[in-house]
Amino acid sequence: MLTLDRIYHASYVLKDVIRPTHLVKASGITDVCDVYLKPENLQITGSFKVRGSGYKISQLSDEEKAHGVIACSAGNHAQGVALAATKYGIESLICLPDGAPISKVEATKGYGAKVRMVPGVYDDAYKEALRLRDEKNYTFIHPFDDENVIAGQGTIGLEILNEMPDVDAVVAAIGGGGLLSGVACAIKNLNPNIKVYGVQAEGAPSMLESIKQGKPVRLDKVSTIADGIQVKEPGEHTFKYIQKYVDDIVTVSDDEIASAILALIESQKMVSEGAGAAPLAAVMFGKLPVEGKKVVCIVSGGNIDVTILNRVIKRGLLRSGRQQTLCIELQDKPGQLVAVSKIIADLGANVISVHHERAGEGSDVTAAYLRIILETRNFDHVRQISEALTGAGFKLV
Amino acid sequence: MLTLDRIYHASYVLKDVIRPTHLVKASGITDVCDVYLKPENLQITGSFKVRGSGYKISQLSDEEKAHGVIACSAGNHAQGVALAATKYGIESLICLPDGAPISKVEATKGYGAKVRMVPGVYDDAYKEALRLRDEKNYTFIHPFDDENVIAGQGTIGLEILNEMPDVDAVVAAIGGGGLLSGVACAIKNLNPNIKVYGVQAEGAPSMLESIKQGKPVRLDKVSTIADGIQVKEPGEHTFKYIQKYVDDIVTVSDDEIASAILALIESQKMVSEGAGAAPLAAVMFGKLPVEGKKVVCIVSGGNIDVTILNRVIKRGLLRSGRQQTLCIELQDKPGQLVAVSKIIADLGANVISVHHERAGEGSDVTAAYLRIILETRNFDHVRQISEALTGAGFKLV
Repeated sequence: MLTLDRIYHASYVLKDVIRPTHLVKASGITDVCDVYLKPENLQITGSFKVRGSGYKISQLSDEEKAHGVIACSAGNHAQGVALAATKYGIESLICLPDGAPISKVEATKGYGAKVRMVPGVYDDAYKEALRLRDEKNYTFIHPFDDENVIAGQGTIGLEILNEMPDVDAVVAAIGGGGLLSGVACAIKNLNPNIKVYGVQAEGAPSMLESIKQGKPVRLDKVSTIADGIQVKEPGEHTFKYIQKYVDDIVTVSDDEIASAILALIESQKMVSEGAGAAPLAAVMFGKLPVEGKKVVCIVSGGNIDVTILNRVIKRGLLRSGRQQTLCIELQDKPGQLVAVSKIIADLGANVISVHHERAGEGSDVTAAYLRIILETRNFDHVRQISEALTGAGFKLV
Repeated sequence: MLTLDRIYHASYVLKDVIRPTHLVKASGITDVCDVYLKPENLQITGSFKVRGSGYKISQLSDEEKAHGVIACSAGNHAQGVALAATKYGIESLICLPDGAPISKVEATKGYGAKVRMVPGVYDDAYKEALRLRDEKNYTFIHPFDDENVIAGQGTIGLEILNEMPDVDAVVAAIGGGGLLSGVACAIKNLNPNIKVYGVQAEGAPSMLESIKQGKPVRLDKVSTIADGIQVKEPGEHTFKYIQKYVDDIVTVSDDEIASAILALIESQKMVSEGAGAAPLAAVMFGKLPVEGKKVVCIVSGGNIDVTILNRVIKRGLLRSGRQQTLCIELQDKPGQLVAVSKIIADLGANVISVHHERAGEGSDVTAAYLRIILETRNFDHVRQISEALTGAGFKLV
């Protein structure tokens, strides 16, 4: 049974394991409400997950500790279990699907775990972990559906109320639901007037569907850039507590999540993963009734894949006029490239790439095309360059 | 005269202006020493600069306050002055060169300053600011060469010693030298055994040159990705205090700075600008004698240009095998592109761009080239793809 007592106990136990993370006011992101961030991306291991695994492992019997623990994850849970096990001086083995990014594998090893790469996808690694548990008597550390894990995550709720007793609403992302069930239990038991909201990715709304249908349901397919909350089915425990304590669940699109990641980078100098930015996305895009309120968004983690980060930044460049692709029709005669290059250089834009080709069939046979990617200062700069080119007789297509 | 007293006074006055920033242990970046970060990138306005301008403005006379203040900056100083002036209820005018990125202009306005865009470069904006100062009786807020500004920056030194009295060395970047002179004065007056080091960009070593020559010298040309420390000439005051208090000054390359920015993103989930990452770069690349020591690197700011951030991330993708460009020689006959695409798809790599062209003069006239950019998982994945292609008879060039 998940009780406030147990969450308080977890909070005491975890003092030796976690870093303190203080609320940060996120100015300049929205005028609709006062947004504060609980920056668990700055937590040790880069995510809140170490809280749940830390408390879970601390409560194992001596015999269980002697056998060690096992988990299956390609992400934050792996690092949380690894670090917590090392802190308590016990062995940990993490099963990962063999396609996992090398950076995650290295980070998990770095926190002291042994790693077993399993051919196949997540489900294959999961089966292998259960097989090894039975064979070797390891304790399996579930990523969310365990009341001690949930109690550990709930300590975030206590910390928020401790620092900001007059908060109006707390928003957290839902993957399996461990974070939100713990936080909601802590908050509602202390002050039921504080609203607690959950956010899921549009492409992985398993908890939302489950709540609608009144029972945990499994989705066939889930897909989102927020890999930390790309979960097909909620837990039994987490479903029950979210049904009991949470006021509402909303969804955000990948595009909205990307905007929130970018806002955190630009305004707060913080790197967040997709799941970590989802609560802020829900606030930024008006999904929640929080006008004029004091709202805490939990930034659950910062372990973003660098490929995704690259896409988010590119998007930011395009949206702010800092990068621009121009396609210019040229007469296929000498000197044209020089003329274009000079106009661009004179206006202070930086060339990233140039692609010059003859026209294909069906168009003017004397024409050629120049596709040029530029670093520009802003949209006004882009306009100046376009005007200078058309003014010199070039046709932008 | 800069005294410890004045820095203590600044620390008291600034309590209402700044955010507290707590030291963060930066695990996993280097084994050589224990690195802690003073994260002034998380400071309000995204940099430490608000400390200096805040204290300077607080100490103006009522008459000076009534006339308002003026500054010239396209960067962090602009935002610091704007915010501090607004906090003290006085007017501020910031002169910016008209090529300044729109994001910086907007941020400066957002903190309550009026902005004057001046045609030309920084020096033109600076002259215009001095002209306006004389015309309108504004007080000019110098970005570094002012003892109250230096005292404000020095509060960082007090905070570091308050949180970690047993620190062995403190490292800060030097542009004009305001930050380091304040920090060094605070630290050396409290404990002369603590080492204080300065770091400059290889392309802008104005303080290093000045110390070598025994007087402030002006460099003709400076160039670095760390725009916050791209300063041609140190101040008179800052030169004097750095000469007196600082143990050594070293330089780092743009490449080393980029590595440090990336390390802060990946390991600490923090966005740093070039100047902010320079001290960590000096530690990471062995420029300082800090083996086995407890070292604090001041991350002075996080206002990185998104274009630079984009380049840093790209570099990270390439270095970790997450993005790969392959150039493949094809026989110029139907079906070749299909065969290559299938091999790549079967191995789970994601195509970013494809460029297919006939060979030019001087090579086999029947050949064509395919230049293909892929998102890959790691170097092992890249190797698998290369081997599968060569195994199928394709030639990688």
